[in-house]
Order: sequence, then C-alpha cells, then structure tokens
Amino acid sequence: VSKERITETAHYLDTLTKPPGSLGRLEEIAKQLAGITDQGVPQVSPPGILVFAGDHGIVEEGVSAFPQEVTVQMIRNFLDGGAAINVFARQIGASLQVVDVGAAGEIDDDRLVTKKIAAGTANFLKTDAMTEAQMEAAILAGAESANTMIARGIKCLIVGEMGIGNTTAASALVAVLTGCSVEQTVGHGTGISAEKKLHKSRIIEEAIRLRDPNPDNPLNVLKKLGGYEIAAISGAILAAAQAGIPVIMDGFICTSGAMAAVRLNPYIKDYLFAGHVSQEPGHKMALEDIGAAPLLDLGLKLGEGTGAALAFPVLEAAARMRSEMATFDEASVTNK
Amino acid sequence: VSKERITETAHYLDTLTKPPGSLGRLEEIAKQLAGITDQGVPQVSPPGILVFAGDHGIVEEGVSAFPQEVTVQMIRNFLDGGAAINVFARQIGASLQVVDVGAAGEIDDDRLVTKKIAAGTANFLKTDAMTEAQMEAAILAGAESANTMIARGIKCLIVGEMGIGNTTAASALVAVLTGCSVEQTVGHGTGISAEKKLHKSRIIEEAIRLRDPNPDNPLNVLKKLGGYEIAAISGAILAAAQAGIPVIMDGFICTSGAMAAVRLNPYIKDYLFAGHVSQEPGHKMALEDIGAAPLLDLGLKLGEGTGAALAFPVLEAAARMRSEMATFDEASVTNK
Repeated sequence: VSKERITETAHYLDTLTKPPGSLGRLEEIAKQLAGITDQGVPQVSPPGILVFAGDHGIVEEGVSAFPQEVTVQMIRNFLDGGAAINVFARQIGASLQVVDVGAAGEIDDDRLVTKKIAAGTANFLKTDAMTEAQMEAAILAGAESANTMIARGIKCLIVGEMGIGNTTAASALVAVLTGCSVEQTVGHGTGISAEKKLHKSRIIEEAIRLRDPNPDNPLNVLKKLGGYEIAAISGAILAAAQAGIPVIMDGFICTSGAMAAVRLNPYIKDYLFAGHVSQEPGHKMALEDIGAAPLLDLGLKLGEGTGAALAFPVLEAAARMRSEMATFDEASVTNK
Repeated sequence: VSKERITETAHYLDTLTKPPGSLGRLEEIAKQLAGITDQGVPQVSPPGILVFAGDHGIVEEGVSAFPQEVTVQMIRNFLDGGAAINVFARQIGASLQVVDVGAAGEIDDDRLVTKKIAAGTANFLKTDAMTEAQMEAAILAGAESANTMIARGIKCLIVGEMGIGNTTAASALVAVLTGCSVEQTVGHGTGISAEKKLHKSRIIEEAIRLRDPNPDNPLNVLKKLGGYEIAAISGAILAAAQAGIPVIMDGFICTSGAMAAVRLNPYIKDYLFAGHVSQEPGHKMALEDIGAAPLLDLGLKLGEGTGAALAFPVLEAAARMRSEMATFDEASVTNK
C-alpha cells in the first residue's frame, strides 16, 4: 500500500466540514482505500462478489446439520437469484459469480463458472483433504476468478463461499494456524446440537493429531485440512491485493482462507476488510490473529458472502465521503 | 405494532433458503418492520431524512469546541449538499429536509424549511431553556415536518440534528432522565479538551441543581434543559410511530429526544432503530435505558443523522431479504 496516499488523505480529511476524526472508522477506511488503490480519490464501485463452492469429505463423519446434496442445490439457488447473497448483491449493485471448485455433484448451467478440481475433498480424518497439486490448482482457480472480475472493472472484491461441512475445515485450519484449542474454534455451524458439536470437536482433534500439519507452513495446513473453496479464497485474495483492489472478507470460512494468504504474505492484511464477525466462535480468533476489526456485528452465521456484502455500503460511504464532502474553505464554515 | 405480523413473519423467515436464524439481527429487523408497518412485505425505501437545527444559550458558558455561528454555516452547507449527511443521503437515495427550529441567525433560502421558535434557547444555567409554549411549538414543528415527509411517500424516517452546544443539553437530559451522574453522560462533544470537559460537567451539574427538573415528567425536563431541535426530534418520532413508519435514530442528541418520546409513551420504542452507538459516553446509557441495541459501532461523533443514514442499508437488506429470497420449496433445497 502507498504510505504517501494514506498521509495525504489523512491531511485532506481534516479539511472537510466535520470535526477532525468525527467520522471514526470511516476515516480509517478512506485512508486504507487510498493506500490500497494508490488513488487520491479511491472508488469501490462497482463491487464484485465471488462465491466459491466446494464439498468436504469430512461430512462422512456426521459433522454437519445439512446433507451434502445442499451444496449443489444452493449453487442452483445462487444461479437462479434466490439466495440471500443474490438479494444483497442486487442491493449494492454487485456482479456475482459462482465458481464451482469442488462440489460433489455436477451442474450443467452456463451461468456457472466451472473450475472443479475434484468432486469434494477427501475425508481428512483418513487422509489429506487435497494433494499438493489439487491445492495449488484451487488457489490458482481463485486467483483466475478474481483476475477475470478485476479485468471486467470491479473496484472492490467480496469473497464468499458455499460448502456443507466447511465450518469443520475452517475450525481445523484456524485451530492449527492460531494455536487455539479446537474447542475454542468450533461452533454450531448451520445449527448442530451441543452433542453433535462435541462430536465435531473430537473429530477435528483426532484429524489434527493424525494429519500432523506444520503450523508454520500455511500451504501444508491448507492441503491437509482445508477445502477447495477455502484455497480458492486464499488465491482470490492474493490476486486482488496484487492488483490493488480492496477485499471484503465474509465470515469464518473466508477468514480462514484469508489467514492462509496472510501467513504467506503478511502485507496482504492491509488489503483486507472484515465485513462482520459471525456467531462462530473461531471467527473472532481468526480476525484477532490477522488484526482485522469487523465492520458489522449482526449475529450472522450464513456465509455465502452475505456479511461482506452487507458491509459494502460502509466502504462506499467512506469513499464518497472522501470524494463528495465540502471543505471548510469551500463551504465558508469556521474551523475551530 | 402488530403482533400477528411479527409471528407470521417469524414463520415465513424459517421457510427461506438459509438455516433458521442464520441472518441474525436482520431477521429481528424484518419482524419488527412487519410489526411497525402492519405489512406482510414491509418496505423501507424511499427513506427520508430530517435534520433539525437549533442553537443553545448555554454556549455562553464556554462548553463547546466550535463557535455558535457554525450552526448557521452548517445549515448553508446542508442546503448546498456539501456536508457528510448530504453525501450519505445521496448514497441511500433519501430525500433530505433541513428544518430551522431555533438557529440563532437568519437564513434566507427557499430550500430551508423555517419553523423557527426562537433564535436559540435561553442559557439554562440562568433560566429554563424554553417556555412551555415554545417547547410545545418545537414538538409540533417536528411532528409536522415528519408528517409532510410521510405524506410525500417516505417509508422510513431518519432523524438528525445540528446545533452547536447540543451535546451539553443532551448530557443534561440523559443524566436527569436516566438518573446517571453527569460525569457519566458528558463527553468530548465535537472535540473539547479534558479541562473543558470538566468545566462542561460542572456547568451541567450546577444547571440541574438550579433548574431542579422533575425526572418523572419528560416535558418538564425537556423545557428546562432541552433544545428546540431535540424537542422537534421527539415530535417527529411521535408522529412517525403514529403513522406506522419506522424511525432510525442517529446519535446521542437524537437519542435524548427519543428518550423523552419514549417516556411519554413506552410503546414508541418498538418503532425505533438505533443507527449506531457514538463516542459520546452518554449515548450508550441512553440506548440502554430505552432498550435499543445499536446497528453500527463505527466510532462516529458527528451527528447530522450520519450514523442513522449509514445504518439504513441494514434495514433495506432486512426488507429485501423478506421480499426477495426463495423458499426451500421454491428452490428445491433440502431442509434439514
């Protein structure tokens, strides 16, 4: 990011008709956007949303509230415009692209971008979730998807996901990468019972013991315990940062993918905004670990990119504040 | 509010393609909107913003960071479209009306609605801020302003204010109405020093002692320590609730006006959304007192209606979620 643009923006914001600092985090966001984009007057519209979909072998172990078939059913719902993320995408004027990087079923629909690496990851209780080559292919698929959207002119990337079982993978990743206990990173997902949650924790603990990932090597952790959509998110974030495009992360799963990207390159965190903090307990740990403060706290636990899309208007407001407000001089207002 | 509509909406939301409750506060908002509007499919667009402006005699005591002339200068800035609230109004497609209920100076501009009660309140360290008749006129001016906007078709009312010295009035009101100490309700306003803040607290304490308001009578408190814009906000809120129109409160000053309205009629609180929690410490007290949880926490301390306007997209998202999302049946998605 450009430190000069940040300093220049900080000075400019104090000339606007408001007490210094009175727009709080909006002022911080405006500075960060200037730094990321290296633009004096950064824009975030139009935004683009990438929803990466993948299935998880670990669902065999009975860790999820919904059956695996829901991943493909929800992909169809996204394509037909009926899911929550579609509603919020229309509200903010975002283009939305669904990318199948690893759904277990086949979808024949030309509105879907198919970059399928495999029909779901392997059950990571029994073997690594992905091979090294598969993981790399998923990261590349994410990066390509982001670059395509960026080439089409989006000014802000919103990342989301769909994948039955993916809070299990994210809990495992976040536990290993942060050093937290599994119990601290496991939540109720889309609605499992207390008993099933305990089972989910035990499965993850056993899997971590058996896979024995190297916590200092994010790619090793991703390969052993991750998911195709999670690896794709890491890749999309790396590509957006490379292009100077701000990224809004969604919830727990997205943030686990972002963590892997940040471990690969710590500067990536300067390009990230945390859309919200979800009900999944591990999300807070992951956000703290990468030093990202959430913009919203609305008790969401849906995924798809919904929390990030809901937070987009805050970034839009920060950008407009920078470009549209009058200065004390322009408005002939007395500065104290 | 309609309890039937709330129950009906609660059932409907569980048929939508998302785990039950996974949209968190958005689901609560959708239910509340259905109750307020008595509509199965409530709408909040287009929104309308009322910015009430008034001056405060108490500024003679040196309680504010900016000189009194800034109230009139900022009214001109609002009319010219250069203030923060103008920027955020354009972003959300809101009509914006500035209403002069008590500015100290004259503004000759036909874009301004003039319902001036007096050229600023009296210095409440020396006498009551307003007479009974003035206070009633200000409440009526607020109600009329809201009713005019509602007649023009707005579906959600955003209330904001401008008035140098008005955090002093709000701190006094909130201290008396909640029973908190003045020290707990006084903050740095638009940017005073620690020393000046102590002075501000002492002035307020002394004024409360001298005016001796009746904490059980909100109109008595408002008359003795309030402001024209604050009384107008109370009136606007009462009118909007009467018309079944949801209201988004802005910050500390708005919430002090809302408190008076809620004390007059406790059912009013069901019509209110707290846009955000500001940096002024008394705001949190006031919100807790009326049982309103803020939608945003962005460290704002500007007023004008900015925090409420920034929160509007959350209400819009809740309304769209209710009206646009597909059900499990419609989308052929397996419900657990």
